[in-house]
Amino acid sequence: MNAEIIAVGSEILLGDIQNTHAQYLSHQLAPLGVNVLRHTAVGDNKKRLTDAVTGALSRCDTLIITGGLGPTQDDLTRDVVAKTLHVPLVLDCDLLAGIRAYFDRLGGDMPESNKRQAYRPQSSVVLPNANGTAPGLLLKKDGKRVFLLPGPPGELKPMFEASVRPYFERLLGETIVSHNVHLFGLGESKVDEMLGDLMAGENPTVGVYAKDGEVRVRVTAKGKTQEACEASMRPILEEMKKTFKKHIYGIDIGTLENALVQKALSLHKTVALAESCTGGMVAQRITSIPGASGCFAYGIVSYANRIKAEELGVSKSDLETFGAVSEQVAEQMAKNARQKGRADVGIGITGIAGPDGGTKEKPVGLVYIGVSTKEKTRVKRCNFSRGLANERGAIRNRACLQALYLALLALDKA
Amino acid sequence: MNAEIIAVGSEILLGDIQNTHAQYLSHQLAPLGVNVLRHTAVGDNKKRLTDAVTGALSRCDTLIITGGLGPTQDDLTRDVVAKTLHVPLVLDCDLLAGIRAYFDRLGGDMPESNKRQAYRPQSSVVLPNANGTAPGLLLKKDGKRVFLLPGPPGELKPMFEASVRPYFERLLGETIVSHNVHLFGLGESKVDEMLGDLMAGENPTVGVYAKDGEVRVRVTAKGKTQEACEASMRPILEEMKKTFKKHIYGIDIGTLENALVQKALSLHKTVALAESCTGGMVAQRITSIPGASGCFAYGIVSYANRIKAEELGVSKSDLETFGAVSEQVAEQMAKNARQKGRADVGIGITGIAGPDGGTKEKPVGLVYIGVSTKEKTRVKRCNFSRGLANERGAIRNRACLQALYLALLALDKA
Repeated sequence: MNAEIIAVGSEILLGDIQNTHAQYLSHQLAPLGVNVLRHTAVGDNKKRLTDAVTGALSRCDTLIITGGLGPTQDDLTRDVVAKTLHVPLVLDCDLLAGIRAYFDRLGGDMPESNKRQAYRPQSSVVLPNANGTAPGLLLKKDGKRVFLLPGPPGELKPMFEASVRPYFERLLGETIVSHNVHLFGLGESKVDEMLGDLMAGENPTVGVYAKDGEVRVRVTAKGKTQEACEASMRPILEEMKKTFKKHIYGIDIGTLENALVQKALSLHKTVALAESCTGGMVAQRITSIPGASGCFAYGIVSYANRIKAEELGVSKSDLETFGAVSEQVAEQMAKNARQKGRADVGIGITGIAGPDGGTKEKPVGLVYIGVSTKEKTRVKRCNFSRGLANERGAIRNRACLQALYLALLALDKA
Repeated sequence: MNAEIIAVGSEILLGDIQNTHAQYLSHQLAPLGVNVLRHTAVGDNKKRLTDAVTGALSRCDTLIITGGLGPTQDDLTRDVVAKTLHVPLVLDCDLLAGIRAYFDRLGGDMPESNKRQAYRPQSSVVLPNANGTAPGLLLKKDGKRVFLLPGPPGELKPMFEASVRPYFERLLGETIVSHNVHLFGLGESKVDEMLGDLMAGENPTVGVYAKDGEVRVRVTAKGKTQEACEASMRPILEEMKKTFKKHIYGIDIGTLENALVQKALSLHKTVALAESCTGGMVAQRITSIPGASGCFAYGIVSYANRIKAEELGVSKSDLETFGAVSEQVAEQMAKNARQKGRADVGIGITGIAGPDGGTKEKPVGLVYIGVSTKEKTRVKRCNFSRGLANERGAIRNRACLQALYLALLALDKA
């Protein structure tokens, strides 16, 4: 099945908005056996949209068009598709009633212009829109299928999940199930290498994705049933657990902070933080997770020696002797954060995020991360710089991820 | 001038990466008088890329192609453009020397494959690449101009600024200068309304952009010289200052946190934070700015009553009587943060970010923000919920922006 995706909207061509649908749809369609061969974006212009639709239909059998289904004269997609495929537009009374009901729920009258949205190409199938007034449409003719999907992401994505994905799954005669294995502490190419033959399979498939210091391995199976898919993935997931051990921080867990919070909540354990160079980033990520208050109560951003000493109780003489960026200070930050927060795990982070403040002995990127439990306190020395310009954000991010990961590991021993 | 943009890369069609260049280039080209009529993305496939290039050249006079300039056999852009326009590829010895020098600087030998990058269509002009080995190219033939730009954003953007923008400015015979006026506390439509006639001008133009609770007004002038542009914008900027007064938090300043840090540094004043529902987000944003340590030393994330009382000195009985989310607690958080941090301005934030924890009296989205200076401490009561699902992130973000803005205003009085 060869497909093209056309996004309609002059605001895309002006650069006012990003055409995110093309990526979203391509990413969803690839495992469904749909081969996307071209993305196009055109403006709200009848001739140019007609050109684009005609061109695409000359090359592919499946065309997905996003946007241009609104109620205004600018919204041309319905008209252009109907005309290009020589199908009349008909008023659909059920659609009209649905749109009226939508406005009733919002407590207002339906503007007359919205009536346009109740017209559809004859013989097209309606894809219900739970989140707006523009129905999705599927029109089949002469061996071609054309999907018309609404532009707002909050309408398009639920419609894709509810109607488009099941359509392609039925065509495929199969169900598709994916699991994401989240890894930390190994580079993308190392993960590739360690996966070895596991990546050669055609079903399930195994793909590696890297982003901002984390690596995700996606395992995707096709099969007759969900259970069959799960069964075919099980040996691969088991093999991966053996291969990657503690580098796996979770399956289908999303982020490191989510993994940390879920694990701490399930173990009834708590974490406390003392941050210097990350400046609250670790606390911010932990508290971004709903329910974080069940495992996190105390964080301090001690961005000056005086605060480290007075508010956190780090030894003044150690600060003077070893400097704020030192193993000794990281250790005390972690330990004292744990004690002040009465937590099971304390994390202390001190380093040089740059761009200034680096020296030969303590270069930009040097970060000490202390991890303290009741039994012991350990410090990891890291250098997160890759020698590039403007690395402050990247260094802080890497320090934050490393701290979250060390906290996660420490929960087991706390 | 009518243009199209083609992005080359199979990873775009697989949905593995977002085609961000199309938006970037469109956004840059619009004020340069370049009318972008279509975006296309195609894979690393000779026939399909040739189709796309041929089609685009039949419709427009200016074609910009991004990607496919790398050293491997997959990188087809040079070959396809040369063949489509019937121009031979020639080896450019200067380019080859430049690529060799690039590898010398990195301390390695040039792989033989990189020699491909030294070939260019005859009569094309080289656009230097300061950040990689793929030169940009500009080829003119038969009234058409074709730009070939590298795919990595870190190479494309500097090349656009250094070579492509000046090219179009010369064509236009004019210089273009923009200023961004950053506003807080007014919605997009209110800003529109208050700008009134200012938005009607054709040169300078005035555009309004809203994102995540902040509004930016971009004023863009075209003129013979930079000075002429500045002079034509001055009355508009003055008018805006009168109209929007303290809602303007900066011009060309980027973010609220940058505005806060720069102002605090210039006034030699400091800020301290006590965060509850924002959980370190305000501290994280402030410390994301290089040099923040000059105006920020202390932040506490007090995510439990015990921490508010023991570590921050909030009255236990007030916590019991009024609750953690109350005017009284926000006031003490702000005041005590200022005192503990020995700062000029103290900020205290306490609220309900959701999804749980809301009641009828204190619904999700209710946030108290205390602002304390030596003279007085004030508390602002806000409700940041819009009644949507999964608002936790949005509520925290709005609370963070409001806190940064209030801190900025307080600096004047501190």
